[in-house]
Parts: sequence; C-alpha cells; structure tokens
Amino acid sequence: MSPTKMAIREKAFTIIRSIFKKHGASEIDTPVFELKETLTSKYGEDSKLIYDLKDQGGELLALRYDLTVPFARYVAQRGLSSIKRFHIAKVYRRDTPQMNKGRFREFYQCDFDIAGSYGLMIPDADLLSVIIDILSSIGVGEFVVKLNHRKFLDAMINLAGCEKRKFKAICSSIDKLDKEPWSAVRDELINMKGLTNLMCDKLEKFVQYKGSPWEMLNRLKTDKVFEGHEQGMETIKEMELLFTYLESMKVLDKISFDFSLARGLDYYTGVIYEAVLTDTDRVGSISGGGRYDGLIGMFSGKNIPSVGGSIGIERIFNILEEKAKAEGVIRATETQILVTSMGKNLTPKRMEACADLWRAGIKAETLYVENPRTDKTFSYAFDNGIPLILIIGENEIKNGIYKVKALNENKEYEFKVEELVPKVQEILKNNQVLLSKDK
Amino acid sequence: MSPTKMAIREKAFTIIRSIFKKHGASEIDTPVFELKETLTSKYGEDSKLIYDLKDQGGELLALRYDLTVPFARYVAQRGLSSIKRFHIAKVYRRDTPQMNKGRFREFYQCDFDIAGSYGLMIPDADLLSVIIDILSSIGVGEFVVKLNHRKFLDAMINLAGCEKRKFKAICSSIDKLDKEPWSAVRDELINMKGLTNLMCDKLEKFVQYKGSPWEMLNRLKTDKVFEGHEQGMETIKEMELLFTYLESMKVLDKISFDFSLARGLDYYTGVIYEAVLTDTDRVGSISGGGRYDGLIGMFSGKNIPSVGGSIGIERIFNILEEKAKAEGVIRATETQILVTSMGKNLTPKRMEACADLWRAGIKAETLYVENPRTDKTFSYAFDNGIPLILIIGENEIKNGIYKVKALNENKEYEFKVEELVPKVQEILKNNQVLLSKDK
Repeated sequence: MSPTKMAIREKAFTIIRSIFKKHGASEIDTPVFELKETLTSKYGEDSKLIYDLKDQGGELLALRYDLTVPFARYVAQRGLSSIKRFHIAKVYRRDTPQMNKGRFREFYQCDFDIAGSYGLMIPDADLLSVIIDILSSIGVGEFVVKLNHRKFLDAMINLAGCEKRKFKAICSSIDKLDKEPWSAVRDELINMKGLTNLMCDKLEKFVQYKGSPWEMLNRLKTDKVFEGHEQGMETIKEMELLFTYLESMKVLDKISFDFSLARGLDYYTGVIYEAVLTDTDRVGSISGGGRYDGLIGMFSGKNIPSVGGSIGIERIFNILEEKAKAEGVIRATETQILVTSMGKNLTPKRMEACADLWRAGIKAETLYVENPRTDKTFSYAFDNGIPLILIIGENEIKNGIYKVKALNENKEYEFKVEELVPKVQEILKNNQVLLSKDK
Repeated sequence: MSPTKMAIREKAFTIIRSIFKKHGASEIDTPVFELKETLTSKYGEDSKLIYDLKDQGGELLALRYDLTVPFARYVAQRGLSSIKRFHIAKVYRRDTPQMNKGRFREFYQCDFDIAGSYGLMIPDADLLSVIIDILSSIGVGEFVVKLNHRKFLDAMINLAGCEKRKFKAICSSIDKLDKEPWSAVRDELINMKGLTNLMCDKLEKFVQYKGSPWEMLNRLKTDKVFEGHEQGMETIKEMELLFTYLESMKVLDKISFDFSLARGLDYYTGVIYEAVLTDTDRVGSISGGGRYDGLIGMFSGKNIPSVGGSIGIERIFNILEEKAKAEGVIRATETQILVTSMGKNLTPKRMEACADLWRAGIKAETLYVENPRTDKTFSYAFDNGIPLILIIGENEIKNGIYKVKALNENKEYEFKVEELVPKVQEILKNNQVLLSKDK
C-alpha cells in the first residue's frame, strides 16, 4: 500500500472512528486467526476460501474470513449480555485477486453491531442513524438507504403461496431487481426456482412497493395487503415505530422503503437495509446489514438479539482515491513547511528551525543534505504539495532575518529570527483560508 | 482486545501518527503475508517461529515476522531510491504466549526508517529527534537514549586484540552490562567466549566510557583511546557531527553516549541506539535501532543506505494501561452526555435531542429502552464515565425546558429546549476546565 493510498485511508478511518465514538460505540479488536473449528460450517460454499495455517503443532488455526463470526465468538466467549462495538480490520480470502473489480485476498471490513435485549426498534434506528452519519460525512456522494423487514419477506412468500423452504432461492432472484427487469426475474423464478405464474403475479404486486417510507406504509394499509395476516400487520406497526424514530433523528429523508430489497442471508430476523450510491452507477451497495437475533446463540447457546451493519470500506477508499486524483490533491505527507538554507554550514541552523517548528506542532521537514540546491528544494516542495519554504540565508542570519516563500500564493514574507513560530503560524492560518477559497 | 484496551491503543496510535507526520514521514502498509521464500533465512534460529500458511494450492505464504524484512522487500520491489516511512502493524510469531511478560503470538510493531543516500548523520539525527519526540509526548515517564556506533565496537574489538569473527559473541556479552556487573561479563567472555585476561582488561577500559555526550567524546580524545586507529578517529568525527545536530535540535540532553551499548544485530553499520526508561526498573528498552546500510541490498542487489528504529509499542501500551488504571480514568467510550427521559413516550424526543447533539459534533448516547429507569441511567453514566446527563421530563417539555446534570461537579443546569446545543457546548467547555484542574 503506497503512502498516498495510506494517507487517504487514514483520513477515512479517522472520520469513521470519530462518528462511531460520537454515537457512544466502543472499538474492539480480535486476533487475525481463529481456531479452525470456529470458522467451520459458518460460510457454506465459501468455506473453500478460508486461509488455513499450516499444522506446525499446537492448535489448528485459520485466518478470519469476516468480522461477524469473530464478533459472535467474542461475545459468546466473554459471556457478554450487551455490547455496542465497531471493528475495523482486515479479513482474508483465498480468492483470485481482481484489482479492477476491487477484489483482493486481504481487505478491510468495517462492522458496527449493537447486541443486547433492548426496546423495539431503538437500536435499529440508532444503527441506521450511525450509517447515514458516516456516509454523509465521508464524502462519497449522494446515497439512499433501502429498507425492508425479514418478516415482510416471509409474509410475502407466504401470501404468494410459495413454499417456505424456497425462501432463500426466491429472495436471491428478487434481490436482482435493482439490476434486472421484472420479466427476467420472473423467468428465473418460474424456470429455475419452480414457481407458478400465479405465485409470480402475486409477488409482482409486492415488489412494486418502494419509495417514500410513510407513503408506502399507508399504501400497504389502504391496499389491505396484509389484512388478516398477523405477522404482516405486526411488522407494519414495527416499521411505523422505526420511521417515527428515524424522523425524530431527522434522517428519514435518506430512507427508501423497498419491498424488493431481499438480502438473502438466512440469519436476518428483522430489519434489513442496504445503502446504495445514487449519483453514480459504478458501484452499487456501500453498506448493508440488519437484525440477526439468532447468530450469537450459535456459539454460546444463549441468544442475544443483535442488529448490525457493514460498511464497504474498500469501495469507499476507491471513491475517495478517484475524487482526490480528480482534484489533484493526493498528498502522502502533511508537511506544511520545508526548511532550507543558502550558504555553507547552515545545517545546524536548519535543524534548530525545524525543532522550534516541531515543538510548536508545525509540520516541518528539511532535505537530508548538507547544502540543499535551490532547484531540488523547490521541486521537492512542489512534488509533495508543501505550501511554504523557510529560507535561511547567510546574509539574512547576520541580520537576524528569516524569509518564508508561500508557493501557492507566490508571496514572500520576512521577519525576525525570534518571530519564527508565531509568524509561520500566522502565514499558515491565512494560507489555509486561501487554499479553501480556491476550491 | 477489550474496548478499554483498544481506547488506550487508539490514543497512543493517534499521538504517534501525528508526530511521524509532523516530521514529514509517510505511512505505508504491506500485506500480512509474504512469500515464504522472502522470509526464509532472514531470522536465523528464530525461523522456527514463523507461521506458515497451509499449502492449499497457489503460492507458499507465511505471516510476517517483523516489519523490517517486508520494508526491505517493498523498497527493493518498487525500485525506490529513497523513502521516509513509518509502519504500525501486527506481526506474528509461533511463540508460547506469556501474557505477564508481554509476549504474544500476535503483537504490534511500530517502525520508522529513512532510506536514501543523504548527508552524513543528517537522517540519523532526525531519526533520534523523532523517537525522542514520541517518547516525550506519549507519557511513558523519564527515559534516556543510549547511543553508540558500530565502528566504535569494531575498533574496540580490534584494539583489544580479539578476533573479528567473535564480534557478535563479544557484543552479546557486553550488552548484558546494563543488568550484570563487569565481573560476570568478564567471566563469560573468558570461559564461554575464549577471550584472554589481557583482552578483557582492554575491553573493560572501553566499556567505562558512558555518560554525557560531549564529555565522553572529549575523554576519548584526551585519553588518546583511538590514537593512530583510522576508523576510530573517523568515528569520533562522525559522532561530533551527530552531537552538533542533536544539540541544534535541543534533544542532546536525552542522549547518553554508552560504549557498553552493543546491540548484537549483525546488520548495523553505523549509529546504534536504545531508549530505556529511567524512572522504573520494570521494563528496559522501549525503542531501539540504528543504521543498516546493507539490508535492502539483500533483496535488490542495490544497497540503499538506511537508518531506522522500532518503538516497543506493546510495552508502551502496558505502561499507559497501568497509568490509566492507577488514575482510574480508563474509558472505553468517549460519550460526553447521556440523554434520558422521565415520563411516557418520550423516546422520539430523546432521539431528536441525540441527533441535534450529534450534528453539532457532541458525543451523545441514550439507553436503548422505552422508559429508562433513573437508577439505571445514573449507574450507566457512572460506569462509563459520562460527565453529563440530559433529562427530558414530561413537565419540562410542556414548559419548553431541558435540564442537564453535571455529575462530576454535582450541578444542575436549566435552559430552553432550543438552546440545547450551545448550552451543552458551554457546560462541556467549563466542565473540561474543571476536570483538568482536578489532575
């Protein structure tokens, strides 16, 4: 990972961490390897992508495949009854890397989960507000959060007369509706999944419910879609509560109620969501998650209701990198001033100036040569986006004078040696204003 | 890793990163696994501690054992001619974990290296200033940086009449002088390493040179220790230059010139240093490093002079944890205000207040229950070190009033609902002043 890429990542991590903390979440870390048996039979088909460690004696270990299973293992093992945590870490897959598609063998995941027995829809609302806060703050562009409920999907499949055991198969077809027309999905449902025309007609009515949250809920009610269906009616009430909370938090405008959102994962038991970018068609989902009340119990035998989401941090990195490239402002370092000298034996003077600047918290560098050449100094500053150059000249030193060149405004400042720190602080302050005006 | 431990680590990382950046360093990352062949024959005896991945087809991989070899591989592979980088990441060792001694199978390393052909002692001086800046800022207590030079050690062994091939063996004995008396080291040199009494007498004179940098250099000169020994005389000049630079940067007072510092690693070619805590005898070295001009060439065939150091970040974590425990201020979260309600159906109001606070950057939480009990609210705030509680009461809402209880000063504030954000900001500002006065 090159320094410029790292700089972008670190900035994104800082924003994300600060928002998680703003919402009272704590951060945990788990080891990169889990016992092999912990991961076994958690990922179905994809288990072949797990990296095993060589048996060199001792326990059989494997590299973590995601952050969810280690989280469930962590909560179960420590016997926690509640936790609100985030975890930003790398996971590992024995996949063929496809850089252009953003698929790597080692990549970051960023998960946030709230586990514990709580008031209905309260943590769910907080989860969504956190995700929306992060996506709004990190600058990936416009987005919408599609929302649905596992019990709506159950009710839909039930009311369409489909067999319960086909739940996963049907959902995986319906979930394609963001990319494919209904006719294609219908074909798949009939030819591949064995549904009847009648079933498909019924499903088609359901999946058309998508749009503004309150409007959709009202339509579901006036259309009497779930009339007499206990679970369906209950779920409408749950969603009303959730929308009320989201409205109180002033984030409901980011939500789209979408019956065609059918995340296939078996373990979801309540709300499911997916955040998608709307001002680009390049990447789809950048965050997804939902309520999974049964997962932790797989490890401890004791169920702890949980709701959580994952942020597609690698996709966000890609977007931020492209944006930075387009704006031409990728910097690997944050140096504010380059200290140089003109004349012989001034290296100690340069170091003294650097040290004074560092002590004041100013980011400063000097070239690691005895007598820096002017051309090399300027090209180093330009190449690295350093806005200021402090010039220590032989004659100026005699008169107790320092000079600062501000490259981005083509200005020169002169001041007394002892004013170095306050003057540079002042120039930086005004200079920053100029820089942000430029944008 | 528990949330409180993580919180301490993240704080340390933030300080360390900001100082590296202040000195113009960039950050890189390398994959957690390297090709097995890259690690082979780099660690001698310790190679048995390398974690290999299972051969599941494809390349043979192993988990990184340190950050130095991946760095050398990175520089060589990318054909870089210079880089000033830091890297904070975990490394892996098939060791028996000994928690009480701070030995784990997975632990952080924090490395800083400057590679490139530069002016004599200039990057070396900057390296030391960075290390001193970090150790001073991170609050681990008093420390001293012991300094020596590989060429002094070579000259010492040469002048004592010892065989060159015994360099490593002799150094490893001498390096024990910080824990053992000379008599014990002498015994070892004679009985285990086959040195004569005369050789030991000569070595004994050398290792007594330790103390204030300029004083020691002057003693070396007046005692004519290296008279007629070209390499020794040259090295005195190099050290003079280094001390001049360190003095310019006002960090020379942290340095102790120490002839008995004999870091055994074969690859050092110039300055070697080790930072040790002085106000505790619990942990010894918390940072070490030096110049290694030949290492990168092992990978590329093209030598790039380098100087670097490693910060014992796990030891620093332990010290910071103990300090925080002693001060009773370990917090897993940073929540500033807990929003609670008294009365029925006020959950949306609580959420609205949270959202307003979040939007203003204030760290706020609310309990995830419909009707929070007062005792539970207060104990949650106390347990998590949250200084303020916002109370939304039924009657107060009617009068457009909010109340804030400041737990750490036992005060209550009342203000209009619409003044929420500015009032909380004001209370937090004054509250922080109070908190820091307490210390």
